[in-house]
Amino acid sequence: MSVLPKSVEKVIDEFGRLPGVGPKSASRMAYHYLRSPNKDATKLANALVEMDEKITYCNKCFNVTDLEECNICSSPLRKKDRICVVEEPLDVVAFENSGVYDGVYFVLGGVISPADGITSEELRFRELRERVTELLTEIESLEVIIATNPSLEGEATASYIYDLFKNLLKEGKLKITRLAMGLPTGADLEYADRLTLKKALEGRRNI
Amino acid sequence: MSVLPKSVEKVIDEFGRLPGVGPKSASRMAYHYLRSPNKDATKLANALVEMDEKITYCNKCFNVTDLEECNICSSPLRKKDRICVVEEPLDVVAFENSGVYDGVYFVLGGVISPADGITSEELRFRELRERVTELLTEIESLEVIIATNPSLEGEATASYIYDLFKNLLKEGKLKITRLAMGLPTGADLEYADRLTLKKALEGRRNI
Repeated sequence: MSVLPKSVEKVIDEFGRLPGVGPKSASRMAYHYLRSPNKDATKLANALVEMDEKITYCNKCFNVTDLEECNICSSPLRKKDRICVVEEPLDVVAFENSGVYDGVYFVLGGVISPADGITSEELRFRELRERVTELLTEIESLEVIIATNPSLEGEATASYIYDLFKNLLKEGKLKITRLAMGLPTGADLEYADRLTLKKALEGRRNI
Repeated sequence: MSVLPKSVEKVIDEFGRLPGVGPKSASRMAYHYLRSPNKDATKLANALVEMDEKITYCNKCFNVTDLEECNICSSPLRKKDRICVVEEPLDVVAFENSGVYDGVYFVLGGVISPADGITSEELRFRELRERVTELLTEIESLEVIIATNPSLEGEATASYIYDLFKNLLKEGKLKITRLAMGLPTGADLEYADRLTLKKALEGRRNI
């Protein structure tokens, strides 16, 4: 005899699949809905189904959208001479919230990570090449800004992208850049790790 | 123009209502489902709807169940001469998983907490009294084990329950007990807080 009703256990199981949610938190979440009087569980259920139905990927940048082409790619205000290559849709959100970038994006869908079984096949490198080729028919010169994370996998993926466009570089129509690495704002030098200090020193600039 | 599609924002909003889930985690959760290929979002949605439809409260102990009377209350193996009064259904799960209790339960639905606007009206004191009266017609003597949390609110609620049954105590048919307080197993005396030490000392026993 199980302690919990089956239908509650099923919800706990599903919550437990979420990133960063352990069995204890999953139970708390399920019980939150058992306690809430105003059909909150149904509200979440409906929102999930609606998202599943409506959401698709932009056919240009592969960010999530409920349109064929996302708001950013279709906006005449966004500069098409720079394309920022990120890992995940949430990275686009981070850039957009910061308001520091006015070009277009490309969402790879992850990073090359042999340890997690993610090879270059799983990521959108073919689509990235197609998109870059397409942009180059529209404009004179294009900057590919590689904005993968400053992790081992992010660095490896950045190298892979660089190799992907090496031949185009020679023609002088393409520029490839990488986000700067160094000390984050507000950081304490005393506590900075070795690699961060190394990158900060290597990337030092005249003032 | 919002960065995120509306249907994604709705899911993030709903996840954000969960206890212990901030806006960042809520986004991660929503994006987890955007990334997962096998309709996991729909699975969670279905599980939630099913739970909402099936789950009800046991008419005896008010634990969650998908039956009219829960498995514990209807089991002939459970002793009816002791009733353990807990705050939440998860407390029943904790006791059941430990396997240390073979009586029945009563779920109050929370604790008296004026700061959170929870008065005695909101809790199941009337139902508790009815249940105790009902049990006393079936058995000779009953022990009410108060197992509210060792917090300020839990203590206040324990006192309230004691007052509730004071008159029955005189008749000698009822016994009211409270879970022991003291040092938890594996604790380090050095780091125990003052109140825990005080309770441990007060509750010391002959060996």
